[in-house]
Amino acid sequence: MPAFKLILCYDGTAYAGWQSQRNKPTVQDTLEAAIREVTGQSLRVLASGRTDAGVHALGQVVGFEVDTRLSAEVFHRALNANLPDDIAILELSEVPAGFHPTHHAVRKRYRYIIYDGPHRNVFQRQYCWQYPYGVLDADAMHAAAAALLGRHDFSSFESQGSRRKSSVRTISHISVCRRGTVGSDLPSADAVRAGEGRGESSESSGPWIVVEVEADGFLYNMVRAIVGTLAEVGGGIRPVTWPAEVMQAANRGAAGRTAPPQGLFLVNVDY
Amino acid sequence: MPAFKLILCYDGTAYAGWQSQRNKPTVQDTLEAAIREVTGQSLRVLASGRTDAGVHALGQVVGFEVDTRLSAEVFHRALNANLPDDIAILELSEVPAGFHPTHHAVRKRYRYIIYDGPHRNVFQRQYCWQYPYGVLDADAMHAAAAALLGRHDFSSFESQGSRRKSSVRTISHISVCRRGTVGSDLPSADAVRAGEGRGESSESSGPWIVVEVEADGFLYNMVRAIVGTLAEVGGGIRPVTWPAEVMQAANRGAAGRTAPPQGLFLVNVDY
Repeated sequence: MPAFKLILCYDGTAYAGWQSQRNKPTVQDTLEAAIREVTGQSLRVLASGRTDAGVHALGQVVGFEVDTRLSAEVFHRALNANLPDDIAILELSEVPAGFHPTHHAVRKRYRYIIYDGPHRNVFQRQYCWQYPYGVLDADAMHAAAAALLGRHDFSSFESQGSRRKSSVRTISHISVCRRGTVGSDLPSADAVRAGEGRGESSESSGPWIVVEVEADGFLYNMVRAIVGTLAEVGGGIRPVTWPAEVMQAANRGAAGRTAPPQGLFLVNVDY
Repeated sequence: MPAFKLILCYDGTAYAGWQSQRNKPTVQDTLEAAIREVTGQSLRVLASGRTDAGVHALGQVVGFEVDTRLSAEVFHRALNANLPDDIAILELSEVPAGFHPTHHAVRKRYRYIIYDGPHRNVFQRQYCWQYPYGVLDADAMHAAAAALLGRHDFSSFESQGSRRKSSVRTISHISVCRRGTVGSDLPSADAVRAGEGRGESSESSGPWIVVEVEADGFLYNMVRAIVGTLAEVGGGIRPVTWPAEVMQAANRGAAGRTAPPQGLFLVNVDY
């Protein structure tokens, strides 16, 4: 039976997250319904990981096997035609049997977008955290984040409810940049996937703060807990050295609050 | 009684347009409810013009008189606190009695955003026309649009249902630009209002086409009819000279289809 890999982009606003749930709309159920519509087969798909309610994806990776004679191109088009406006398959390809999007992932990148401009941002309200307490010091946040680079126990940044064997992860990239626009990131998944807009923008002023984190894996709510912690540094409530202390405490109570879901984007997954 | 002028930004997605209607949410009713909440007074506000269902505003201008002792700054903050997330007052100022946002307007600017990239754009789907028929020739659209500059009878671009004395208007600016991002336009009303992102971007490639039209007044659905007509040129269905012929016909049946509402933004109004 042919195995397929999808790269999926979605606006998480209308969904109770990725994972299938009873009586709530989820991205997984919506995708599985489209596959059923096109192939006549009911099956479960696997993803690189769950995303929570309200969290978005620019490049979620999904795998499944299905008996179809459709070419990848036709299958791709047929699935998109059966998906709602807020979910798009960017790529569909046939892969060797046994591809497992969760277990085979070697690296993931998340982006978190904060808006600290003077006005309520009506158009991006579902795609950023509108920070309500004034202007953040992005340089201080960037400096503080550097302590989290490398292999550490991140249990201070893990929400309860998860059952991981280990809370040790390796962050290979973390950056905090102020930007004049998030246009190349947000509206255009193409630009992101082509490697643009990865936090190395030339614009260093403006109301947007983009936090990028790449790691070999993430604990439950890890990015949002890191962002909530860095925001306390950016807001001048805590010193630049604080996130390092939080991490060393290995205690979730030590960290800042979990930043809201709508600012978070799963950018891509490497295999 | 003090008179006030507001500059209002709104996401039109959830509203049946600006103008008050029974049993449907409108921007006008929502704003009047906020004023009632803050001042205890029921009143009607005036706007520079109506916007249709799904149409957005970056700088709608609203005027009203109300008996209040609040300072402009406090009144501004109190109103915003009583407005939903998809409406924001960017500026509030006291003006001389008799200010009429409709009659005193001398010039308005609209922006229409088209996306013709290869993938469904899930994040901007409510803020652009996702052109489904391939890539548009923006240069041809720009060249065709030049014929509409100046004082003309625009009745070919007026939808029925309006009762204007005259369909002669003067377009003082019309441009069509391909852009790599609409970030500085869309998410940040600040940047727009500061004069950035007015179609003179340095980026000349990318999946966005921005149509800007400035005139002393607009007929009903005029921008959307112009955009629908220019898109037939951009799509290669009609020659560059066609919009000029459409205009000269002075007959709505001669023009292209009305482009969908969600790509349209009222940018600003000059007095």
